[in-house]
Amino acid sequence: MSRRRSGPHVLAVARGDVPADLLLTGGRVFLPGTREWLETDLAIADGVIAGFGPREASETVDVSGTSLTPGFVDAHMHLESTKLWVDEFVRAVLPRGTTAVAADPHEIANVFGVRGVAALAEAARSLPFTFGICASPCVPASRFESPAAALDHSDLAALLDEHGAIGVAEMMDFPGVIAGDPEVLAKIAAAGDRRVDGHAPGVTGRQLDAYLAAGVESEHECTELDEIEEKRRKGMWVFPRQGSAARNLSTLLPTVLRHGTDRVALCTDDREPDTLLTEGHINDCVRLAVAGGVRLEDALVLATSNPADYHHFDRLGWLAPGYQADVLCFETFDRFEPARVWQAGKLVAMHGSVVPGAVPTAPAPEWMRGSVHLAHRPRAEDFDRQPPPGGRARVIGVEEHSLTTRSLVLDVGKASAEVARIAVVERHRSTGRIGLGYVHGFGLKRGAIASTVAHDAHNCMVVGAIDASGPADMAVAVTRLAEIGGGQVAVLGGEVVAEVPLPIGGLMSFETAAEVAAQVDRLAQTSSSALGLTINAPFMQLSFLGLSVLPELRLTDLGLVDVTTFSLCDVAVP
Amino acid sequence: MSRRRSGPHVLAVARGDVPADLLLTGGRVFLPGTREWLETDLAIADGVIAGFGPREASETVDVSGTSLTPGFVDAHMHLESTKLWVDEFVRAVLPRGTTAVAADPHEIANVFGVRGVAALAEAARSLPFTFGICASPCVPASRFESPAAALDHSDLAALLDEHGAIGVAEMMDFPGVIAGDPEVLAKIAAAGDRRVDGHAPGVTGRQLDAYLAAGVESEHECTELDEIEEKRRKGMWVFPRQGSAARNLSTLLPTVLRHGTDRVALCTDDREPDTLLTEGHINDCVRLAVAGGVRLEDALVLATSNPADYHHFDRLGWLAPGYQADVLCFETFDRFEPARVWQAGKLVAMHGSVVPGAVPTAPAPEWMRGSVHLAHRPRAEDFDRQPPPGGRARVIGVEEHSLTTRSLVLDVGKASAEVARIAVVERHRSTGRIGLGYVHGFGLKRGAIASTVAHDAHNCMVVGAIDASGPADMAVAVTRLAEIGGGQVAVLGGEVVAEVPLPIGGLMSFETAAEVAAQVDRLAQTSSSALGLTINAPFMQLSFLGLSVLPELRLTDLGLVDVTTFSLCDVAVP
Repeated sequence: MSRRRSGPHVLAVARGDVPADLLLTGGRVFLPGTREWLETDLAIADGVIAGFGPREASETVDVSGTSLTPGFVDAHMHLESTKLWVDEFVRAVLPRGTTAVAADPHEIANVFGVRGVAALAEAARSLPFTFGICASPCVPASRFESPAAALDHSDLAALLDEHGAIGVAEMMDFPGVIAGDPEVLAKIAAAGDRRVDGHAPGVTGRQLDAYLAAGVESEHECTELDEIEEKRRKGMWVFPRQGSAARNLSTLLPTVLRHGTDRVALCTDDREPDTLLTEGHINDCVRLAVAGGVRLEDALVLATSNPADYHHFDRLGWLAPGYQADVLCFETFDRFEPARVWQAGKLVAMHGSVVPGAVPTAPAPEWMRGSVHLAHRPRAEDFDRQPPPGGRARVIGVEEHSLTTRSLVLDVGKASAEVARIAVVERHRSTGRIGLGYVHGFGLKRGAIASTVAHDAHNCMVVGAIDASGPADMAVAVTRLAEIGGGQVAVLGGEVVAEVPLPIGGLMSFETAAEVAAQVDRLAQTSSSALGLTINAPFMQLSFLGLSVLPELRLTDLGLVDVTTFSLCDVAVP
Repeated sequence: MSRRRSGPHVLAVARGDVPADLLLTGGRVFLPGTREWLETDLAIADGVIAGFGPREASETVDVSGTSLTPGFVDAHMHLESTKLWVDEFVRAVLPRGTTAVAADPHEIANVFGVRGVAALAEAARSLPFTFGICASPCVPASRFESPAAALDHSDLAALLDEHGAIGVAEMMDFPGVIAGDPEVLAKIAAAGDRRVDGHAPGVTGRQLDAYLAAGVESEHECTELDEIEEKRRKGMWVFPRQGSAARNLSTLLPTVLRHGTDRVALCTDDREPDTLLTEGHINDCVRLAVAGGVRLEDALVLATSNPADYHHFDRLGWLAPGYQADVLCFETFDRFEPARVWQAGKLVAMHGSVVPGAVPTAPAPEWMRGSVHLAHRPRAEDFDRQPPPGGRARVIGVEEHSLTTRSLVLDVGKASAEVARIAVVERHRSTGRIGLGYVHGFGLKRGAIASTVAHDAHNCMVVGAIDASGPADMAVAVTRLAEIGGGQVAVLGGEVVAEVPLPIGGLMSFETAAEVAAQVDRLAQTSSSALGLTINAPFMQLSFLGLSVLPELRLTDLGLVDVTTFSLCDVAVP
């Protein structure tokens, strides 16, 4: 792999011997190194910044009175959480100023393996965007999950060496790393001289020391200030996260106020399409950072040069000679919505919209449809679990605005316990396996909700009412998921009352961001009004209840997983 | 190339399962990321930091009350300027806290080509030190110089791909880069994903834009604050230099005070052995930075994490889990002289001295001796140039404490002009070529001084008195250089009055730093007292008068070079 260096045309423009392709005149340019604003023209040639200062140009754009910054870079995100295929994602975020991301496609990897990730990389290649793909080391996330595909260290090597992966994605198997599991260490070694991202929520002290010594370099899972401070002190890059469900930024910002911006970058991790459209993307994180007291210039560093440096994104993150001309033009920083966006020197977005034709169609392959494979049509009795003798059961305790669950013990026979039924139906290999349990915190009073978006194995996750109607509606919901090739549905009284079809692997839509956001919104509204759901972002919460590496209690098709001891456990509590 | 990641023993120590190899207890540890000091124990295993905090250990060292920092890293230096072979250099700088350097061996490359650099790399490999070698792209420095060897882009590729070079060294041919010379751009391309260091003194504006767009990334040649500010703003890494002759640090420090430490690192470039022993190495630069108003913690970043980051030095520059245990222990920061130095977890120096046996002998190969090849024994008449008609001549104007010369026009026939004779005798290929000219600023009144250290081609550079005795003494001086296989000599009345033998390529000594420094000191004392030299560091100045890429006027065996127009010019001025 070689870094890009400019050729004769750029050098000739730099010298002033020939006209620039494009000259942006009259703006003030943000300089990450000195954190200054410099009033200067920017000359662009062959998609890169050729130089500062006035020059002849084939095209001149007057940006007087505006502020120019490098394009924003998301340090860590999952495309699949946006429910959009990559071209539609790019259409959604370019107008908001994001021109590069480091994406961990481990949802696609769970459903389609290396072939799926390679297809995503291929589709992304034609887009005016830097879509950095990381090689996912934890597919499945743990031995308690049943995805369609599993990736071993040789699959990671293939993604890195043959399909252009930029590093190893979040190493969620922190117990395996800390214990020195040879296959896990082989996955880290596959990174070669590239990055290895981390995922070790709450891991501190000696356990953290071992995790870092093994070669993990970054963390986006911090939820507490003490945690992020320890991780910074021990040399980690930290990515304060502001997703749709996990909103950690305000809690973590004091570390920037105290100690500056070294080895800190912003990330979104998981953002729903409606969050993208209404709140934004990395520009939203920058806005929140500034609102939280971070200096504008420091916040910009967190969103530009720092994430580009970390990911070794070649010549991104700066506006300087030789750097790619990913330029955001701001008339105001009120909401950090750029008036214009150039990517590699081409105007791609204006005033919140993509320039027509700027983002080509890059469709998902047809073979990504039809990925819900059930052993048989689900029946109510599949979901009709009797309360344990005495009624005391382990219950997954969902908490608002957090991905962490609590392991509760409740009397699930009592209405005052306010629990619901939960089930996971294996859907990749038609095994017929179903895991059953209880969940608290949704406020679901009737009907059922279900989703094939269910980290990380993306089996069918379904929550239904505790009363007798619940199992029937759960069966209808899962049946509907199979019919539409995956997605998210709400069922009441045996009828589907709202749905978001996600036919691409059961994860992503073929529709536009606006249409998907509208579907998601209708689903959320209907779920709340018809089913009595009270929790914020119920489908986001639902989608994480099978992720067997987040504390404390999860459910997979194999049963209830105690993440603190990393073992299966009984629902019944004696 | 893979990054180092720790194995099972380090992980077991990190977890606390087995005793550490070494525990440093009671110190406070510098943290580059947050710029804090943390009171914690450091556990070391297999040469790396396994973790923070108390642990069982095979060996425990009480460092209570002291401050622990990462080892210092020199961002850019030339081993040959120290006149020491690499093992003796390491013995000189380890006690001063330097544990890593990025070295440009272009003097050796000029004399011995790829073979010489490979031999240096091989010798360095056995030493307790990170001796990063860069591939020199400008051998010869220009077409006006006559070294023994020339390196083209395929030689650079060999150094990078076969001999472990960490990047491309200072790209001195900035006119070639800016003009887009294909061979020069091919040398940059040879770097692949590694660094390309810069050297473009005084280059600014559009010329600088072109130089950067071509892929050059760093600069250590800044002499003015405005220059370093522009270079930082345009994305360059800048290395404020504090050498023996070029002392730019105090002029440049305000950029750190104004804008912080991003993309700034300290370097020594060229330090003589006596400077190493009396003033120090990077620790001297840190001391000067703090004396100049830079916060201690910022100065440490400039000497540790920043240069390590720039050069992609694997797991250096921090004290954190997984990083190499290059640890400096300071009882006081008065002079930044560490009380103890551990390299890769081994104690290598204490209170200014190397621990006996810590640095093995790594001798230069015997074939590096005897590299002065003259066509014939020099005669007085070889150096006896008559003043031009009318007396007006171009004269090299040497300036105290600067490597820049001025192009003067003086009447060299008048004693008041205070000029001396200067000559360059080709010594690699016995061509018999001699370049002749005049120099001002040495204050030399009688006799001659000569040196085979003569950047970059390292031919014999000799300065002699303007009177009739000069040519004879110049002949004696060059004859002596041939006899001792190279070095530096002072001659008066036909007798050698002092000398520093440098038999390794005519550049380096087999002696210890103390002995070489004493020889250098005697040479300087004798030169000043016997020959009337008034300038500071006359032999350092002498050694740069042939470097045809530094402004404004130089002399090579081909004749007088006007560096501002990059052409040969006549000595006589009509």
